[in-house]
Amino acid sequence: MEKKLFEQISENISKNSALTKKTSERLINNLIIDKEALDNFVTQLDKIKKNISICEICNYYKINDKCMICEDSQRNQNVICVVANQLDVNNIEKINKYKGLYHVLGAEINLNKRKTPSDIDFQKLISRINKETELILALNATFEGELTTNYIYQLTKNLNINITRIAKGIPLGGSLDYMDETTLESAFKNRKKYEV
Amino acid sequence: MEKKLFEQISENISKNSALTKKTSERLINNLIIDKEALDNFVTQLDKIKKNISICEICNYYKINDKCMICEDSQRNQNVICVVANQLDVNNIEKINKYKGLYHVLGAEINLNKRKTPSDIDFQKLISRINKETELILALNATFEGELTTNYIYQLTKNLNINITRIAKGIPLGGSLDYMDETTLESAFKNRKKYEV
Repeated sequence: MEKKLFEQISENISKNSALTKKTSERLINNLIIDKEALDNFVTQLDKIKKNISICEICNYYKINDKCMICEDSQRNQNVICVVANQLDVNNIEKINKYKGLYHVLGAEINLNKRKTPSDIDFQKLISRINKETELILALNATFEGELTTNYIYQLTKNLNINITRIAKGIPLGGSLDYMDETTLESAFKNRKKYEV
Repeated sequence: MEKKLFEQISENISKNSALTKKTSERLINNLIIDKEALDNFVTQLDKIKKNISICEICNYYKINDKCMICEDSQRNQNVICVVANQLDVNNIEKINKYKGLYHVLGAEINLNKRKTPSDIDFQKLISRINKETELILALNATFEGELTTNYIYQLTKNLNINITRIAKGIPLGGSLDYMDETTLESAFKNRKKYEV
């Protein structure tokens, strides 16, 4: 009976964290053999609980009840970049070039995982749009991302606002001979004048 | 400044759990957007802390101060299977065939990671050996596993005990044309009479 405790815990951790079963098992094993690491881990989770929540406006993180993006008056309040999840914002922030706002959808339309348009709060995004808004669609370059991009475009095309989407092309380090046709086609279509 | 909190937490979690940075970030993101999952996660860690520790004899898990392996009198007390870590025991237990004891080394000799023989408590293993003991060496089939297997063999060969090691060969589902030469050679050398 007792033998099952490890499995119960690893199943529970896997379910609550979206880690794979194998990764959960390794995580738990590490924390069992090192109790100091376990305590430190719990401290980090406590920090998350106490200090980080979700912004009611853009769905990105609020640190100590302050959204670092929405409450930054230096940012261009008229540009909204739409992404699938919060980690995408982290990644875009790393390039340190984009100075507009974000809108995190939280998910993409995915019929296999039963995520239909009604499961995603598109109205929240629409309510942020005014005549001056530019919308940058930066969803994943996957089937689900395309579907969601197209859905938002259909919802917003009559609003008479500027809608763009990030470029598709060859990623840094990409080999042309391994690139799929659609990517290659996009890369040719979106070619730019060579500048030194 | 505050913006760095997420990164601090993810670095700390990664350091204390041996998860990659990317996996830590995904884990934290999941726990931020789902506070219920976060609470459940903390509950699981609390269960680990309260109920699971390391057996002083074999280094496997003790559940509520009881080692499920060492304290099971049904098991053959004369056979000790030596493995690198606790997860290996979990995996061997799943096949439900081996009914001896275990000895978890906790690590393998790894000169790249500065794990020399003096960093591993081989003496603890030696002290468990008596005239009747059979030692089954079940370390990983890697360079480090081979090194450690050989080291244990050198330490124990004069004790006049039975020392075996688990077979090397083609794993289930393995394609012969993708198999490396050493594996193939072992598989031929360890061939068995065909039985229906």
